[in-house]
Amino acid sequence: MSQTHPEPEFDEPGDIHDRIRDAIAADDVDGLEALLATLTLSDALREILQFAPKERDRIFGMLHADRAAELINEAPNEIAVELVERLSVGTAVDIIDELDSDVQADVIGELSDEDAEAILAEMDEQDAADVRRLVSYDDGTAGGLMIAEAFTFHEGDTVGQVLRRLASDEEDFEPYRGQHPYILDAEERPVGVVSLRALLTSKRSAALSGIMSTPVTVGAQAPLDELRDLFDKYSYLGIPVVEADGRLVGVVSRSAMDEAVLERSESDGLKRQGLVGDELRSQPTVLRARRRLAWLSTNIVLNIIAACVISAYEETLTAIIAIAIFLPMVSDMSGCSGNQAVAVTMRELSLGLVKPIDAFRVWAKEASVGVINGIVLGILIGLVAWIWKGNAVLGGVIGVALALNTVLAVSIGGVVPLLLKRFGQDPAAASGPLLTTITDMAGFFLVLSLASAFLPWIV
Amino acid sequence: MSQTHPEPEFDEPGDIHDRIRDAIAADDVDGLEALLATLTLSDALREILQFAPKERDRIFGMLHADRAAELINEAPNEIAVELVERLSVGTAVDIIDELDSDVQADVIGELSDEDAEAILAEMDEQDAADVRRLVSYDDGTAGGLMIAEAFTFHEGDTVGQVLRRLASDEEDFEPYRGQHPYILDAEERPVGVVSLRALLTSKRSAALSGIMSTPVTVGAQAPLDELRDLFDKYSYLGIPVVEADGRLVGVVSRSAMDEAVLERSESDGLKRQGLVGDELRSQPTVLRARRRLAWLSTNIVLNIIAACVISAYEETLTAIIAIAIFLPMVSDMSGCSGNQAVAVTMRELSLGLVKPIDAFRVWAKEASVGVINGIVLGILIGLVAWIWKGNAVLGGVIGVALALNTVLAVSIGGVVPLLLKRFGQDPAAASGPLLTTITDMAGFFLVLSLASAFLPWIV
Repeated sequence: MSQTHPEPEFDEPGDIHDRIRDAIAADDVDGLEALLATLTLSDALREILQFAPKERDRIFGMLHADRAAELINEAPNEIAVELVERLSVGTAVDIIDELDSDVQADVIGELSDEDAEAILAEMDEQDAADVRRLVSYDDGTAGGLMIAEAFTFHEGDTVGQVLRRLASDEEDFEPYRGQHPYILDAEERPVGVVSLRALLTSKRSAALSGIMSTPVTVGAQAPLDELRDLFDKYSYLGIPVVEADGRLVGVVSRSAMDEAVLERSESDGLKRQGLVGDELRSQPTVLRARRRLAWLSTNIVLNIIAACVISAYEETLTAIIAIAIFLPMVSDMSGCSGNQAVAVTMRELSLGLVKPIDAFRVWAKEASVGVINGIVLGILIGLVAWIWKGNAVLGGVIGVALALNTVLAVSIGGVVPLLLKRFGQDPAAASGPLLTTITDMAGFFLVLSLASAFLPWIV
Repeated sequence: MSQTHPEPEFDEPGDIHDRIRDAIAADDVDGLEALLATLTLSDALREILQFAPKERDRIFGMLHADRAAELINEAPNEIAVELVERLSVGTAVDIIDELDSDVQADVIGELSDEDAEAILAEMDEQDAADVRRLVSYDDGTAGGLMIAEAFTFHEGDTVGQVLRRLASDEEDFEPYRGQHPYILDAEERPVGVVSLRALLTSKRSAALSGIMSTPVTVGAQAPLDELRDLFDKYSYLGIPVVEADGRLVGVVSRSAMDEAVLERSESDGLKRQGLVGDELRSQPTVLRARRRLAWLSTNIVLNIIAACVISAYEETLTAIIAIAIFLPMVSDMSGCSGNQAVAVTMRELSLGLVKPIDAFRVWAKEASVGVINGIVLGILIGLVAWIWKGNAVLGGVIGVALALNTVLAVSIGGVVPLLLKRFGQDPAAASGPLLTTITDMAGFFLVLSLASAFLPWIV
């Protein structure tokens, strides 16, 4: 690779890798820290993941806990869990202590019960209690995304008390970022929120109850989409989370919501290819192979069902062998058209622009695109078949089959994700296989039955 | 639909739709506002998008500008542009005035030059200048994501001046959310940043230069991934953006970065199905059909190339017509295996866990999964072919072909996105078609050439 290449990192990684290895071998903690400090967090994580698991353990054993925690924080959750579960309890506790409580809960919630208990037993009692509480909420809910730490006061407190706490350096304000001071009543229910402006323009002796306004809160069980709607509606950076009895249990931040939406989008991208467990290549080969196979072997069955249609027309195929050339083409083209419709519906679902109730409207919109594209593609492929095989009727059969199947494919592709969602199924995982099987069967049937009907004019 | 259904919105939308239509017909502004206020922003937008363009124009003409701006803000950019460009200049200016400067620039940047100039001419001079400046930056850069409004002071200013500005209600602090006070030197370069704690613990007469610390800044041309690394490294909610000469030109917020990453992820999901222009179903049918066709018609050509392989073996096909049943199956199964590898690479690219330089390592990891899955799938499909057609050699041919093609497919699927990225191409758009064409050709070739070689034992 040329030395004048504009991206210098193209020349360096092997070098960095070797130098990290040397630092590990020499047990050179400062050297290792210094090397990693030259990289961005994501580059540092990427380098570390290239080492074998045992070497990774060594690295995390050597690093200062706060640096190790930054790396764990940067890692996707499944990697974070994999890294932590291999560490000694002592090292793991030191690192986990440095994480925000929501990340602590994400990691500890995925560990085996035994590992989790071993770590929780060594943690600060209050922190351990917070984590146990956070773990009990589902991932995609306000409770699962919140942090336990809230910047709270009581109704009788004064402006001066808030300012003193803000000014003191006894507390670590890092976890509170973006939070306003929340005022709780005697039952720990949030009854007020105070703006910085109100604090600065009031007397120090003023009671908070006199300057507070009613807070927006969200239930701990609220799903991600409700949370997203709330943050769209209000410009707050954090929203207090309450239990069914109104008690404050934590605060969910705008960025935790944003990150959860991004993770869902990326996870959906994998699910659409049948990858349910959020695969990363640092996971063991056999696990990766097994997860992928689970879906691929189902797919064989679906393919066999579609192939039965071809098998039923073997006589027609024998008579017009040229048809065999066009079967995979019609199947592939229809699949592509249908998947375009799936992709648009998935995006509109994620943006909240369609709901299952809109299935008919979506179908109408898809069908009109399908008719246009079906006619255009049908004419194109029909001409190709005519010219290639010198038979106009064959061209007509292939063209008409693709045109009809395109309309069918976009209709199914547009509507199936909505129907799956309506019946509580995951549209990201199931839309593709359903679509492909139906359009394959229909495509094969259309081509072969039309060809059978016009057999005398084609042979 | 049953009245006891747990999701009440299932019964209402038709109702809401009719009531909105009635409010428009009666020119009942308050009624319309009240109706929309009962919905979340995304539901309100969804309802409005179900109306024909002319009715939508009426709605935006009737709504108060701040409410309309909230809806424009919630809409994906392409919809926002479509809505704004249909409005009268007066209405459009009122609404645009209410948007944050980054959204103003996103919308105005996409309008025709004529429309954009008409709106800019009517805007506040300073705001118009800000928008002109913001529009000049590329979408995926710090400059393209920043807002022009910054909460700035100069070196000689005192703590008291900051507190007075925070306390005064002359300024709208909404755009500043999450920003710290930035201190500029005489050349408008950010030289310091002040924490709230420092403000509260210092005398009102203290100079800011005495309590400020060095700010983290980012260049206006910095790409999204660099910005994401910065926000991963530091917990700030905003980072000041500087030009090449060091001058402050705006502030980019963590949530603008998060949203841009999400948009890129969702846009990539569409691109992988050949949808480059971020389609939504409220766009005109002909535009949607044309955009989809652009890719589908390329796909026909790729399919024809693959079909040529089948055509070359027509004699073998005539001799063993049963092969025609298995060709689409091998092609589909290999495509699925390859797309799984593409999806994992795309995710790792987006998380920064792989770079183009890692192509060989990725290939080695994919190949090992490919060998396992190839053997398993090959045996499965081989058994199916053997039992179905009663010919063990045919089963062997199909099985071996699928096994080899699976290894090829995952190798290509894992590596191609990295190579495309290495050569400056968009992996999201081009990986799928390249993969499918190569695996189709290879799959057809493997099945048909093996079958030709073993012809005497199969027929």
